[in-house]
Amino acid sequence: MHAIVISEPGGPEVLTWQEVPDPVPGPDEVLIDVAASAVNRADVLQRQGFYNPPPGATKVPGLECSGVIAQVGENVEGFKVGDEVCALLAGGGYAEKVAVPWQQVMPVPKGVPLVETAALPEVTCTVWSMVFMAARLRRGETLLVHGGASGIGTMAIQLAKAFGARTVVTVGSYEKAERCLALGADEAINYREEDFAEKVKADVILDIVGAKYLSKNVETLNTGGRLIIIGMQGGTKGELHIGMLLSKRASIHAAGLRARPVDEKGVIVRSVVENVWPLVETGAVRPVIYQRVPIDEAAWAHRMLDSGGHVGKILLAR
Amino acid sequence: MHAIVISEPGGPEVLTWQEVPDPVPGPDEVLIDVAASAVNRADVLQRQGFYNPPPGATKVPGLECSGVIAQVGENVEGFKVGDEVCALLAGGGYAEKVAVPWQQVMPVPKGVPLVETAALPEVTCTVWSMVFMAARLRRGETLLVHGGASGIGTMAIQLAKAFGARTVVTVGSYEKAERCLALGADEAINYREEDFAEKVKADVILDIVGAKYLSKNVETLNTGGRLIIIGMQGGTKGELHIGMLLSKRASIHAAGLRARPVDEKGVIVRSVVENVWPLVETGAVRPVIYQRVPIDEAAWAHRMLDSGGHVGKILLAR
Repeated sequence: MHAIVISEPGGPEVLTWQEVPDPVPGPDEVLIDVAASAVNRADVLQRQGFYNPPPGATKVPGLECSGVIAQVGENVEGFKVGDEVCALLAGGGYAEKVAVPWQQVMPVPKGVPLVETAALPEVTCTVWSMVFMAARLRRGETLLVHGGASGIGTMAIQLAKAFGARTVVTVGSYEKAERCLALGADEAINYREEDFAEKVKADVILDIVGAKYLSKNVETLNTGGRLIIIGMQGGTKGELHIGMLLSKRASIHAAGLRARPVDEKGVIVRSVVENVWPLVETGAVRPVIYQRVPIDEAAWAHRMLDSGGHVGKILLAR
Repeated sequence: MHAIVISEPGGPEVLTWQEVPDPVPGPDEVLIDVAASAVNRADVLQRQGFYNPPPGATKVPGLECSGVIAQVGENVEGFKVGDEVCALLAGGGYAEKVAVPWQQVMPVPKGVPLVETAALPEVTCTVWSMVFMAARLRRGETLLVHGGASGIGTMAIQLAKAFGARTVVTVGSYEKAERCLALGADEAINYREEDFAEKVKADVILDIVGAKYLSKNVETLNTGGRLIIIGMQGGTKGELHIGMLLSKRASIHAAGLRARPVDEKGVIVRSVVENVWPLVETGAVRPVIYQRVPIDEAAWAHRMLDSGGHVGKILLAR
């Protein structure tokens, strides 16, 4: 088969479409004929050499895909050859075929074209596991989403709205603010012009910035607030005002999806299918897709992500 | 009635036993004839002027007591005059009488002398709410308790053991280490001689140190670990290594009991009566009492706490 190979750590140009050996599914895995994958920030870090795949995972990038099941291992439950699915991957999505444990595979939600469902696994599993399972966002609470126009952000806005929470987002442009408001955000703050900590109080914060925002995030939390950190675009070490955290009876949760064991991913995936898929099927929540790029031109898609002008997900389609 | 009054911020000598007006219970409160109170670190901070009582609370110190109900407000449920009880207070325990919302009152566990139950409310409610309700310590996990010989520490050791967890404590002397091991701790580390971060990995950490231990605590957490901060004896601002927290999928929870609304305290108190009292009644968990001091000599009790030689709780008995 063909797949995107990272020839060496570097810029988008190191991503090349090459002939590689076909993946061989293990007894607990399915083999998927990939219809589409999607770009994640972690793929960029991996391309740059800052984020190695977890032990055992392929070096081909790509944390999610959609496609058709071509082969099933002997222990696989609930899936058969020919099923249209999407999947959360530990890697390998930028390829014609990928092998993945069946626990990380989801049926395609009714009414969503197969290619577009490649935009769903990472954002739904991340937002659901962190904002709903870990932070337990409740009806009537306020969720602050940093990077509201990102793939994660656009999903967080829609899910929070569907569950009756108020959403405030930070964005870097008026155009992104407009898009977030159209998706259901109640308020958008342009971080280039305003200080979010002076404008809003939040019960839950979904943060991709890390160190640079740590103090302001804690300042922004309400009593009983929960700060969720899923990215560190603004640095990895920051000063924590423990006294403020304690007086607010607040908590900080930091986690990613990729390195979790299969069973833990399976718990999240099943919870997403149960709780999020029905909302996708009614149209209350939908994949927000910025651009569809041919999979062999992944370099172009990475340049697009690097430039930061996108709203929602960038798809890699075959 | 008489009560301990803080004449001005200062050392133990500012605590004097004086005539003050009797408390008048509101419709949701009971009036307790105090049999005993107990000393908490927060009382010392309050005495020094660093910790003001929450709005509406008496300025008389004392966060817990035991005694006999002398009067009940019209909305009080489940208690009557003459009941032997103990209670979690927002203040006022160092006194002959105290008024407290009925939601914060607990029956005396069978088999424990009334005076001794004054040692239970703060430590059971703190450990139960933070280690079990917030951090969800599970059977087979390892709990690291800083200050294992404190009132909180001695209760955490016993409760963790009763629920099948392994406990490691840090202490400042061999004698305290011995006492913790006798209470059921699996390992004791003398922090004056050894670096806990080099000796142990923990799923849950119960911390009273704050800033000074923040980096080491995060380093000590296992994947999925939870750091619980309930005190800041080592400073209020520390560097947080967000990258390490994220790679461990760990969380930090900081909270105290005193400033919580009555309803929230009520939830904790009911959960303690349901889950902890049965263990106290079988003797699996018991109040650890270092010394019983006459309540009018609270200054002496504070000197004892300040000197740091105690193991368990210091009672103030009438």
